Amino acid sequence: MGPRHFDWRRLEELATNLLVRAGASEQHARTVAQSLVHADLRGIESHGLARLPIYLERINAGVIRLDSEPKVIMQEGATALIDGDNHLGAVVGMAALDQAISLARQMGVGFVGVRHSNHFGSCSYYAEQAIERGQILLVLSNAPEAMAPTGGIRPFFGTNPVAVGIPAGKQPPFLLDMATSVAARGKIALAEKRGESIPADWAIDSEGNPTTSPQAALAGSLLPIGGAKGYGLAMFIDILCGILTGAACGPGVRSLYDNLEHPQNIGHVFMAVDIERFWPLSVFQRRMDAYINEIKSVPRRAGIEEIMIPGEIERRNMESQKSKGITLATGIAKELERLCAEIGLDLRDACIEE
Amino acid sequence: MGPRHFDWRRLEELATNLLVRAGASEQHARTVAQSLVHADLRGIESHGLARLPIYLERINAGVIRLDSEPKVIMQEGATALIDGDNHLGAVVGMAALDQAISLARQMGVGFVGVRHSNHFGSCSYYAEQAIERGQILLVLSNAPEAMAPTGGIRPFFGTNPVAVGIPAGKQPPFLLDMATSVAARGKIALAEKRGESIPADWAIDSEGNPTTSPQAALAGSLLPIGGAKGYGLAMFIDILCGILTGAACGPGVRSLYDNLEHPQNIGHVFMAVDIERFWPLSVFQRRMDAYINEIKSVPRRAGIEEIMIPGEIERRNMESQKSKGITLATGIAKELERLCAEIGLDLRDACIEE
Repeated sequence: MGPRHFDWRRLEELATNLLVRAGASEQHARTVAQSLVHADLRGIESHGLARLPIYLERINAGVIRLDSEPKVIMQEGATALIDGDNHLGAVVGMAALDQAISLARQMGVGFVGVRHSNHFGSCSYYAEQAIERGQILLVLSNAPEAMAPTGGIRPFFGTNPVAVGIPAGKQPPFLLDMATSVAARGKIALAEKRGESIPADWAIDSEGNPTTSPQAALAGSLLPIGGAKGYGLAMFIDILCGILTGAACGPGVRSLYDNLEHPQNIGHVFMAVDIERFWPLSVFQRRMDAYINEIKSVPRRAGIEEIMIPGEIERRNMESQKSKGITLATGIAKELERLCAEIGLDLRDACIEE
Repeated sequence: MGPRHFDWRRLEELATNLLVRAGASEQHARTVAQSLVHADLRGIESHGLARLPIYLERINAGVIRLDSEPKVIMQEGATALIDGDNHLGAVVGMAALDQAISLARQMGVGFVGVRHSNHFGSCSYYAEQAIERGQILLVLSNAPEAMAPTGGIRPFFGTNPVAVGIPAGKQPPFLLDMATSVAARGKIALAEKRGESIPADWAIDSEGNPTTSPQAALAGSLLPIGGAKGYGLAMFIDILCGILTGAACGPGVRSLYDNLEHPQNIGHVFMAVDIERFWPLSVFQRRMDAYINEIKSVPRRAGIEEIMIPGEIERRNMESQKSKGITLATGIAKELERLCAEIGLDLRDACIEE
């Protein structure tokens, strides 16, 4: 089966069914399925259905636990702490999002820490929903070790992502979703597969020297953006998500793939700000539109057709893939096909065209 | 007069006197003097007493206003909005810091927006004080145009800085203070003076091409860290500091140097988090110490003696310059000498050694 176009709603149904058959409630299964298909729709394959097989494997291994619910274990003023009880990451993430927005509506700002969570998909899933609710959202998460501190040569920090969602009016909203590493590990693995070299600022080898060899990079450490600046950003995110919340931090965060004995114990921070404390939403949206127009009017480098706002390319991908279908890579489609067949479903039912 | 060593307390006195003679109250003058000397002590000359002459010039030009006080114009729940009334930036910044910490103590988190502010020195001044008060602080500020959006070729965003302060126990605290550009404009100006070339990832020329010529870079745009990631971070900071607070944003923020007709109308955001909602401070500090120890134990690249925590080098500079004296560059010392002489003071009184 080669790469094909799939209807996003039918993929969501299939993923929901697979998770329900693994033991998740209908509602939890749908949340996770939505978060994965959301990433595929935006063109962020690395955080899409490609992750479903390992989620199912971790459920079967008992390190993602479905027998309880994320709990608010502290709520004082405008802060809260959620214990995810090692549930599916997107289920925990949605609980944190709802709590942060609820606090922001009451208090103007909501700061929610999360411990005992899992890989929660792409941060943009949460930022997008905050935007739809007219709120500003900042999401931070730590992640398994991948980057050394500046001067070090062994991975310590994850590629700890930060995402921000801010609504606009007629213009596309601001949706930044970035890892604090220059490049994703997946991109280096892809270069290795293709026998290509990588730019010298992506990674260091196991002795700390810059390398263009994907093999040497995979045995070494990813580099943070901006040198010591990105190291600082990754550490800041790790302290808030790990030390402050009581989740794991540094190399204590377990791998999604290489460790099926222990829960990951990832930590997150969700912070929402209620725009309406500062402006009526419609006024803020008009100000954002004027501002975005101004940015788009900046003179461009030869060959650049349009200046894009963070998240705008992914938004266009989403529109196009919603109508034309999601293209899944052959490897991913094959694995989904196998998983579907195991429970008597057929991935081909989700195809738009042969 | 060549470069000399100066006693930091006496420099602070002189700077306070200069500001008082320009019309500032004793208390306001001392705040600004402290913020500038703090930067010099940390070895961040660009944000130290080198800025005092232009502050005085802007007071004389009436675009920094001393006839009122920063006002809290909105306070609801855990959010507040401060109008700086175009007062001295550090005076406005301190009002915002106090408000953010006061809200954090009441509500667990405090989110304070600021409009009508000025250049407020180095963000680390505020982060350091939050650390001393056992609070986590995030400071954001926008700044005059210097960086183009990705794909653009004209400066639009400032080098919009972000700073974070987080207390530790026996280990040095975490104090990240970074611009979102790869390099500071001042570094490029210095390379020009010295006839040196600059790395190709610092700036683009006026047609958008990477350049190693400091002249071409100064006529072009600074580059953000991590390409489009840094563009996103700078835009995020501008939206929060400018659009949300009602301060200027983008190229609307006026230059500190090139515009003596209009107030800068810089915007800031100060966000404090009360650690004690999550852990007794002493427990958090022990956890930070263990974590920092772990980072410092990561194997190092050949030639690296120690892995440093963000802010640690500057902390050591401070300790050393507090005891051995601050070294001021000849140009800065000369200008201070001239300003002191105008009001009958002698900079040489602050010298530690001839």
